[in-house]
Parts: sequence; C-alpha cells; structure tokens
Amino acid sequence: MALSNDRRIGKHAILLLLSDEPTEYLATLEQLNWKSCTGKVGSMDAHKVVAAIETAAKKNGVIHSDIYRESHALYHAIIEALNGITRGQVQIGSVLRTVGLSFAVLRGNPYEDEREGDWIAVSLYGTIGAPVKGSEHETIGLGINHI
Amino acid sequence: MALSNDRRIGKHAILLLLSDEPTEYLATLEQLNWKSCTGKVGSMDAHKVVAAIETAAKKNGVIHSDIYRESHALYHAIIEALNGITRGQVQIGSVLRTVGLSFAVLRGNPYEDEREGDWIAVSLYGTIGAPVKGSEHETIGLGINHI
Amino acid sequence: MALSNDRRIGKHAILLLLSDEPTEYLATLEQLNWKSCTGKVGSMDAHKVVAAIETAAKKNGVIHSDIYRESHALYHAIIEALNGITRGQVQIGSVLRTVGLSFAVLRGNPYEDEREGDWIAVSLYGTIGAPVKGSEHETIGLGINHI
Amino acid sequence: MALSNDRRIGKHAILLLLSDEPTEYLATLEQLNWKSCTGKVGSMDAHKVVAAIETAAKKNGVIHSDIYRESHALYHAIIEALNGITRGQVQIGSVLRTVGLSFAVLRGNPYEDEREGDWIAVSLYGTIGAPVKGSEHETIGLGINHI
Amino acid sequence: MALSNDRRIGKHAILLLLSDEPTEYLATLEQLNWKSCTGKVGSMDAHKVVAAIETAAKKNGVIHSDIYRESHALYHAIIEALNGITRGQVQIGSVLRTVGLSFAVLRGNPYEDEREGDWIAVSLYGTIGAPVKGSEHETIGLGINHI
Amino acid sequence: MALSNDRRIGKHAILLLLSDEPTEYLATLEQLNWKSCTGKVGSMDAHKVVAAIETAAKKNGVIHSDIYRESHALYHAIIEALNGITRGQVQIGSVLRTVGLSFAVLRGNPYEDEREGDWIAVSLYGTIGAPVKGSEHETIGLGINHI
Ligand SMILES: [Mg+2]
Ligand SMILES: [Mg+2]
Ligand SMILES: [Mg+2]
Ligand SMILES: [Mg+2]
Ligand SMILES: [Mg+2]
Ligand SMILES: [Mg+2]
Repeated sequence: MALSNDRRIGKHAILLLLSDEPTEYLATLEQLNWKSCTGKVGSMDAHKVVAAIETAAKKNGVIHSDIYRESHALYHAIIEALNGITRGQVQIGSVLRTVGLSFAVLRGNPYEDEREGDWIAVSLYGTIGAPVKGSEHETIGLGINHI
Repeated sequence: MALSNDRRIGKHAILLLLSDEPTEYLATLEQLNWKSCTGKVGSMDAHKVVAAIETAAKKNGVIHSDIYRESHALYHAIIEALNGITRGQVQIGSVLRTVGLSFAVLRGNPYEDEREGDWIAVSLYGTIGAPVKGSEHETIGLGINHI
Repeated sequence: MALSNDRRIGKHAILLLLSDEPTEYLATLEQLNWKSCTGKVGSMDAHKVVAAIETAAKKNGVIHSDIYRESHALYHAIIEALNGITRGQVQIGSVLRTVGLSFAVLRGNPYEDEREGDWIAVSLYGTIGAPVKGSEHETIGLGINHI
Repeated sequence: MALSNDRRIGKHAILLLLSDEPTEYLATLEQLNWKSCTGKVGSMDAHKVVAAIETAAKKNGVIHSDIYRESHALYHAIIEALNGITRGQVQIGSVLRTVGLSFAVLRGNPYEDEREGDWIAVSLYGTIGAPVKGSEHETIGLGINHI
Repeated sequence: MALSNDRRIGKHAILLLLSDEPTEYLATLEQLNWKSCTGKVGSMDAHKVVAAIETAAKKNGVIHSDIYRESHALYHAIIEALNGITRGQVQIGSVLRTVGLSFAVLRGNPYEDEREGDWIAVSLYGTIGAPVKGSEHETIGLGINHI
Repeated sequence: MALSNDRRIGKHAILLLLSDEPTEYLATLEQLNWKSCTGKVGSMDAHKVVAAIETAAKKNGVIHSDIYRESHALYHAIIEALNGITRGQVQIGSVLRTVGLSFAVLRGNPYEDEREGDWIAVSLYGTIGAPVKGSEHETIGLGINHI
C-alpha cells in the first residue's frame, strides 16, 4: 500500500502552486496520466472559495459532475484544505478577514498498488489577513481524499 | 506593509521541506540573513511534535530560549501548522492515527517595510494515517507569526 | 440515577423521526406523559434551523417561552444535535452545503429516580449536501439536556 | 443521483442499532446484498472506539484490510460519527467522561444510480457521562462516506 | 427575565477569584444565600481540572452528588469555562502546555424572576504556558448553566 | 521570565471591565505607563465585534495602524477572547444568538524582565443569548499576545 515516491500527489499539488513555471510543471504531471486544474480565488466568503474550486474541477473534467460520490470526495478534500488555511474555525469574513488564494486540484493514484485507484488532492496557497492592503500573511492548505 | 516577493517566508519554508536539495536551498536563504532549522519527527503524540520543533529551534538559535515572547510566538505558529496537519481536531494518537513529518522553522522579515521586524514560519510536511505501514496519505501545515 | 429502559428519551426521539407511523408512535409517548413536537426545516442557514425548532417547541408547549432557563436548555440541546449533523463546524451555507431535516423535541424524565426531573431531547434526521438535487447523504444528530 | 427510499443506509444503520430484534433486521438488510457488522465498545479512550469498529469491519469483511482507500473511507466515517457522540471536541476520558456504545457498519449503494457505487455508514448509539454508574445520558452519531 | 444587577453570578464568580480579600468577598455572597466553593488546581491533564472542580463542588454541598442533573449542569459549565482557558481545543498537556488555575463555583438565581431558579457559574483564572517556569501568560474562563 | 505580581495585564484588563469606577482604575493603570482603551459593542456579527475593538485600539493609539505586526497581534488576541465568549464555535448570529459586550485593550509589559517587551490583553465581558430581551446569561473572554 506504500506511496510511490514519484507520484506524491500532495507534494505535486503544492509544488504546482508554488512553481515559477506552472505550465512546465503541468506538462510533467501529464506524463503521469493525471487529471488536473488550477485557478485563483479571492473572497471573504468560504462558500465562494468552495464554489470556485468545485466549478473549476468540473469544467476541466477532473471530476464527473453527474456522479455524487466524486463531488463528495472533492468537497471533503476542499474543507480539509480550508482547515489549513483558517487554522481553527473554517470562517473568513465572519471573523473579519479575507483570503487571496491560488488553488490546484490533482486526480490520480499516488500508491504503488493499482487497486488503490484514484485519489484527489486539493492544494491552496496565498494570503490571509485583514481586509486592508498588505495586512496579511501567507497560508497554505492541503486536502487529500480517495475518489 | 506589502509582502516582499522574494522573501515570502511561508513559501520558502514549504519549498525547503519539499526540495530535493535542501542544503542548497538553505544556502540561498542564508543570503537573506534569516535564521532557520529543519528536522524530522514521527509520533502519535502531538506534544512530541511540538517538543521536537521547539527543541530544534532553540538549539539552532532560531529563537532565544530565555525570552518567553519568542517561545510564545513559536508555540502558536506550531499549533497553527498542526491545524493543517490534523484538519479538525489537533489530535493524533488519541484518534488512532500517527504522523511522520519533516519540519522547518524560518525567522526573518518577509515584508518590504523594515518596521515589520522578524516573523517566524513553521512548515510541516509528511504523512498521516493509521498506525499500519502504508495506510497513510500526505499532509501539510504552515503557521506564521510575528516574533 | 439509572436510565429507565422504557423511557430512553433519546432513543424515542430518534425512533419518532424514523418511524413509518409517527402518529402511532406519538400516541405511545403520550402514555409516558411526556411533551413533544415534530417538524421539518430545510435551510442553508443554521440559525433558521435553530429558530424552527425553538418556535415549534414554544408553540406546542414543550417549553415555557417566558422562562429563560427552559429556552437555555433547549438552545444547548439544539446546538449539540447540530454538531452531529455538521460533524466539525456548526456551519451549513457558509461552507456551501444545505440541509433538509425532520426534527423532534421530547420532554420528560428518562431516569428511574423522580428527582432527576425533566430532560429534553432534540433529534434531527435528514440529508446534507451540495445545493444540487440529489448531491446529498443522510445525517443525524441528538442533543440531550436537563431542563 | 437521488437516494433510494428503501436503501437509506444511514437510517438502516441507526434502526439496526435501536432494533429490539437486530437479527431479523440484519436478515432484511441481507436482501439488499449489503455487507454489515455490529458490536459494542465501552471506553474512555476515543482511539479504542475507533479500533473496535475498524477491527470488526475488517474481521467481518465489510472492508478489505489490504486496500488503504477502504480503511480511509471507514476512518473518516468513524470520526464523523464520533462528532455526534462528543458534540464539540472528539475527546472522551481526556475531559473526564466515558462512553458505552453499540455500533453498526453498513456497506452498500443507497442511491438509485448504480454508478454511485458503494458507500459506508457507521452508526453509534449508547450513553456518555461521568465515570460514575448512572451519571450519563444517551448519545448518537452517524458518519457516511463513499468507499 | 432580566438579570438582577446585584446578583450577576458570573461577575461575582470572577471577582471572587481576583479579589485580594476573598474571605470578605465570600461573606458578601452569603447574604445572597448562594452556595459557593473555591480551590486551586495545576495540571497538564484537562480531566484533572474537571475532577478537582467537581470534587470541590460536591464536598462543599454546591451540588447534590446523588442527582445526575446537578452533575450534568456542573460538567457542561466546567467545559465551557475550559474553552475560555484553552481557546481552540480543550487540550492542555496533549499540546505541550500546562495550567495553574484558581477556580470558583457559585450557585444561585441571578435573575429578577424567581421562576428562573438556580444557576451555576464556574470561573477559572490563572496561567497557561509551556511546562517551563515563567513561560506562561494569564488565562480566564467562565461557564454558566441552569441547574 | 516571571510575571510581575502588580502588572498582571490580564487581571487588570478584566478588573477594568468589572470595576464600578473605571475612570479611577484607568488612572492607576496610567502609573504603569501602559496604553489602554475601552468600549462597548452589541452585535449578532462576530466581525463587527472584531472591528469595534480594532477601531478603538487604533484610534486610541494602543496599536500603530500602519504596522501590520501590531494589527496581527491584536487580531489573534481578539479571536482568543472570542473563544471564551462563544465557547465552542466563534459564531454569534449564525447560530441565532446575540452579544452585548464591554471590552478593554491594555498594552504593556507584564513580566519582570524588560526584554519581554510589550504584550496586549483583550478582555470582553457582557451577555450572550437569544435575540430576546432578558434571554441571556453572562460571558467573559480574555486574549493575550506578545506585540
Ligand atoms: Mg484522510
Ligand atoms: Mg495570523
Ligand atoms: Mg451532556
Ligand atoms: Mg460528507
Ligand atoms: Mg449557555
Ligand atoms: Mg498564548
């Protein structure tokens, strides 16, 4: 059941976000036959962050929008990633802060064993802080789920 | 008050963990005149993860062990990073899971304005899962605090 | 101080919700001389779920609306039940999900000892999921308090 | 993607626990071709509750013990169910309380659409309270996940 | 249902803890015909804090130890007070910190209306920090419940 | 690193709120050369409570509004204080309750050692309850941070 060293889906999802050359990085991932998408979202509403990621993942075919189990897997991965971003309560504007985030969603099998099937990784990186320009620090989050 | 693009302390702390050549990466950081340390810890006890990071940061002079405000800044950064790792409750063995983590602690000023002084970033990356070899997935966390 | 086997107020509150013949079930409860009410609420706002249950309990005389200790007992029982429904943060629409719930409120003494006085049970059962038809799974919650 | 009215897996998992004749109830479930197991656990350690359920599910073939994605699905369902039991922090003895629980694990497809595949439901019902005989009230929890 | 200005039970419970002359303060409270107790507890185990307060309240007749509804009211008030002390997760030693606390428990009716009956207030004040002498800051908590 | 007995910043912040003669109390604090402000806020929105305290602290020169590290220190102190007020989830109106609070912010060094520099204490005291006159009980919170 071991994780494959080259297919660490969470590490790839984070490096894709932090890469200076995301297009090249994505090309590497394509060799793994993984599905992926990236995007950006800034908001004081946690539900808008969730919606932006879900929409991107569906539009880019990372998940099938007509199968609920795939939406369910993605939803819980997003909420887990938001726990890293918010560190305590999954709230943004309701406690007077705002986020500016890049996100990536990767789908593939990170394990040596084929029977492990597809997993999904949601990575988030950006800033969180007061709704005042510059009053912010960095934040990161990663959610991983079987799909 | 803007973040300096080259001195994004959280991004550096994460990339240092994920780098294939951490020694070279550390050399780059030294040009910024930042303090840093890295280490590894595997445990079912959250308090041992906290202790491992605190000990490393003190031993390597990242924080002054005889000034409480520095320990306080580090402690809260560690707990925030653990929120990303645990995603819900800051518990490991008490809910029957275990972690194997690399960590980095960086200290420096990530902002354009000198008056912002020193900040501290604690990054964690590794695996979380059942106490059974291979029954685990990746996890990441980042805590940032003024010091 | 033992619970009476026949007067398990939480079990009754759940079975009342799941019963195919709730009217008959309510008739049985009346033999216990308990107060009760049932209702339905669908919403993306947690506060509307709270309000629907409070209103039903007051209208049906399950609690006295002019005595705060009774409202206080009910309020905390509702929030505890919502913890089972939301499993992590007591948030619904703010993390882009919606609920469709049946609820029951029972009031009576579930203990052998008369001195234990009245207790209140709030049960919730229904679905939680994305605000998309069918993208949902079941969820349950129970809150119990002395009143 | 709608839930099938007769195959509400969460409702069945709860009713199985609360049934006066669980053997007969299980027989009905077998007509659905679902896998299932039941058991009991009393403890002040949350990790022992998790372990008891995992062990029963593996022993009874409800999940495959050599495929991590199945353990992962079950683990998160258990933790979600424990949120209903503990209503706030997933802690038992560490906040001086104890639980006496029955549990059931069901596996099958509760949706009309075959493509939804297998889901898992973990139900918990019993008492929570002080480690003093009779100083306890009822508690319930349900966790549902795709598997 | 208004709170009586002179019988603010939470304010009294806090001032009793912070008073330079607690004996005199207690004398004033006796005029209100309230029950009360005070004590001290230092620990890395949250359950020992809970136990110390419960034992003191029972020994001093603030609650009846043979009626569960009274223990239940006190328990939830203690946990609510611990939320103020721990600010996030109700954990102490498991996240490598320790507390040194004074506590008070008051019982009486703080409302104008007699029908509100007895309420209980649990106040906590002291320090929280690393298990290193002096590496600590102050912390306070208050839990209030009907009894 | 010990706390100075006379300069317990948290105790002073609470007593200032509870004092019958706050003006005299503030005069005493001025002898310590501390900065301070007080105010009142009633709301169902947690973000309005945060904003009211931040605005008062900036207007009264307790923090420098153009240095982010000071806003950051204050923000986390406010959120910690709100944990004591809300005891579980940092939510007010979204779970159908409202608060009426007095607040104080103190800034100074509470430790014997000068190197500990400035710390900030945010204290909150008032009522929390249903949005119905009188349906409320007291609540308190304290957040302390290095600045
Ligand atoms: Mg997981
Ligand atoms: Mg911060
Ligand atoms: Mg209870
Ligand atoms: Mg779910
Ligand atoms: Mg209350
Ligand atoms: Mg602190």
